[in-house]
Amino acid sequence: MTQTVQGYAAHSHDTPLEPFSFERRDPRPDDVVIDILYTGVCHSDLHTARNDWGFTTYPVVPGHEIVGRVTAVGSGVDKFKVGDLVGVGCLVDSCRECEPCRNHLEQYCDNGFVATYDSTDKHDGLRTYGGYSKSITVSDAFVLKVPENLDTKAVPPILCAGITTWSPLRRWKVGKGSKVAVVGLGGLGHMAIKLAHALGAEVSLFSRSPGKADDAYRLGADKVILSTDNAQMQAAANQFDLIIDTVPYEHDVNPYMPTLKLDGTLVFVGLVGDITPALSTIPMLFKRRNVAGSLIGGLKETQELLDFCGEHNIVSDIEVIDMKDINEAYERMLKSDVKYRFVIDMATL
Amino acid sequence: MTQTVQGYAAHSHDTPLEPFSFERRDPRPDDVVIDILYTGVCHSDLHTARNDWGFTTYPVVPGHEIVGRVTAVGSGVDKFKVGDLVGVGCLVDSCRECEPCRNHLEQYCDNGFVATYDSTDKHDGLRTYGGYSKSITVSDAFVLKVPENLDTKAVPPILCAGITTWSPLRRWKVGKGSKVAVVGLGGLGHMAIKLAHALGAEVSLFSRSPGKADDAYRLGADKVILSTDNAQMQAAANQFDLIIDTVPYEHDVNPYMPTLKLDGTLVFVGLVGDITPALSTIPMLFKRRNVAGSLIGGLKETQELLDFCGEHNIVSDIEVIDMKDINEAYERMLKSDVKYRFVIDMATL
Repeated sequence: MTQTVQGYAAHSHDTPLEPFSFERRDPRPDDVVIDILYTGVCHSDLHTARNDWGFTTYPVVPGHEIVGRVTAVGSGVDKFKVGDLVGVGCLVDSCRECEPCRNHLEQYCDNGFVATYDSTDKHDGLRTYGGYSKSITVSDAFVLKVPENLDTKAVPPILCAGITTWSPLRRWKVGKGSKVAVVGLGGLGHMAIKLAHALGAEVSLFSRSPGKADDAYRLGADKVILSTDNAQMQAAANQFDLIIDTVPYEHDVNPYMPTLKLDGTLVFVGLVGDITPALSTIPMLFKRRNVAGSLIGGLKETQELLDFCGEHNIVSDIEVIDMKDINEAYERMLKSDVKYRFVIDMATL
Repeated sequence: MTQTVQGYAAHSHDTPLEPFSFERRDPRPDDVVIDILYTGVCHSDLHTARNDWGFTTYPVVPGHEIVGRVTAVGSGVDKFKVGDLVGVGCLVDSCRECEPCRNHLEQYCDNGFVATYDSTDKHDGLRTYGGYSKSITVSDAFVLKVPENLDTKAVPPILCAGITTWSPLRRWKVGKGSKVAVVGLGGLGHMAIKLAHALGAEVSLFSRSPGKADDAYRLGADKVILSTDNAQMQAAANQFDLIIDTVPYEHDVNPYMPTLKLDGTLVFVGLVGDITPALSTIPMLFKRRNVAGSLIGGLKETQELLDFCGEHNIVSDIEVIDMKDINEAYERMLKSDVKYRFVIDMATL
């Protein structure tokens, strides 16, 4: 049995998103049915809608930064009840048995996680459709509790932009006494600054333009380093425990490497593809520096992040849009014309 | 006051090494004077002699894998006495005050370590000359105790090839239960296999040719993986905690990345320069894999390595040469025609 749900879908790489009705499964014993209130708009939504990565199956309903209220639960669910404020991020299932899954790192599932959209359910073979829709049905193990004290409409980006930067902050043990730098001030970068600051770190933003400084300081940065200024870059040598590089397009990371301390790490969270210009091993050899990648986060650490945001009153800086304006929002995202995340008010669908 | 010492030097990038007399300082209170018995021949010696890196000051006396006996000690030395069997590796001094130095990682000294040759002493401004010579005078803090039970002539390569692979094995906590892979079977690679095996790890060699398998197994490898064989490479996916890449020239490391486990690290110890073909972030993102560099090792861990080699009776596989044959040895090294390290018998000088 299935239920008909209203949403917005892309039907090909070069047509606008438009209203779309589709089927969701009837709740299984472990399922939570969620009435969606707000859905954040991630760059991945746009890339998938336009098949930029080459593996989109149409029609696709994007959206993996989802906040809503529980309207029904399966017979086996005791963690959630009708009326709870909950969230769903990038994952809706995984094998739950491999070593990464057992270690609460479902995003690295050896057997491949099930994505919130443009993926296939392991049990019934139905396609997954995301949060540009009225409701979603998700296994309780992949549903998160959202603190009621936060501004609900500004919570969704925590579920992707937030956790993508939180996970490396935790993995590399950032806290009081740490020095963290952020490359790129967009959806991910602005969350990285807020979260690293709240963890007690000294936070710097590397920026190519002085125009971003005021915003960076407002978000919690202690320093803004102009990466085009040699003197500033040299003064920053051997400083950072961790650099979070959020830039999703080709860029030269070599100038940042000498600013890492001995044993420091530059972690890519935005770039998917080749590191060009070529990375030199020289700064890596001479201070045992590391380069790594990190992908979103596991369910346990996402809940931890939501709880942390509740305690520290942290949400995303957002601009709320109507569902019908999604195509215009995509065009503005391509010009980085958003501070710092669009969120769709799902009541407008 | 100085003492005249006989050695072998390069006087330009394109002339052979030849006999050379030079001055060493009279021992300072913290100095140890060493009569050199054997000196290993490292690829760095050749690169420096030929100015391949562009910063050689001539004349240069190479050699930083030095084993000999103490013939005199300064008034403040109590750690060594005349007759002790000792070693000197790549470093003869550092600032001793910065954070890396205080943490026994003198190779990462913030103020720059003093190299055993082609460097300048911090106190008297004299050039440093290496182990292709009859004796050397070194501060006691940079002199190592060599176990008497080992085959003395096969010890020198431990001081560079050995410590360069030992340091990352220890940094990334390799031991029983670890899976380690080695890329490249030369001076560094053969030591990496011996040491990782002795630490209790399961050791694999990545090789482009099946001809190296017998030697790899003899040295302690558990598996040899043909990197040109797709099926073997796919079977090795998600296996390794650490890959030690000893290859000193341009090569594609992307095929090795998927063989790292979640949170695994590929560490460069041989390549000095750009990673080309370009490294892709995709395997890094999807299993939080790391790429790092590592440079030789500190004095404390070098002593630890020598003690470990004494306990486990580990030395290098060597071919002993006469001093006068050094130029021919360099030519053979360029063809990888040595198993696995040349050692100069300094009695032949």
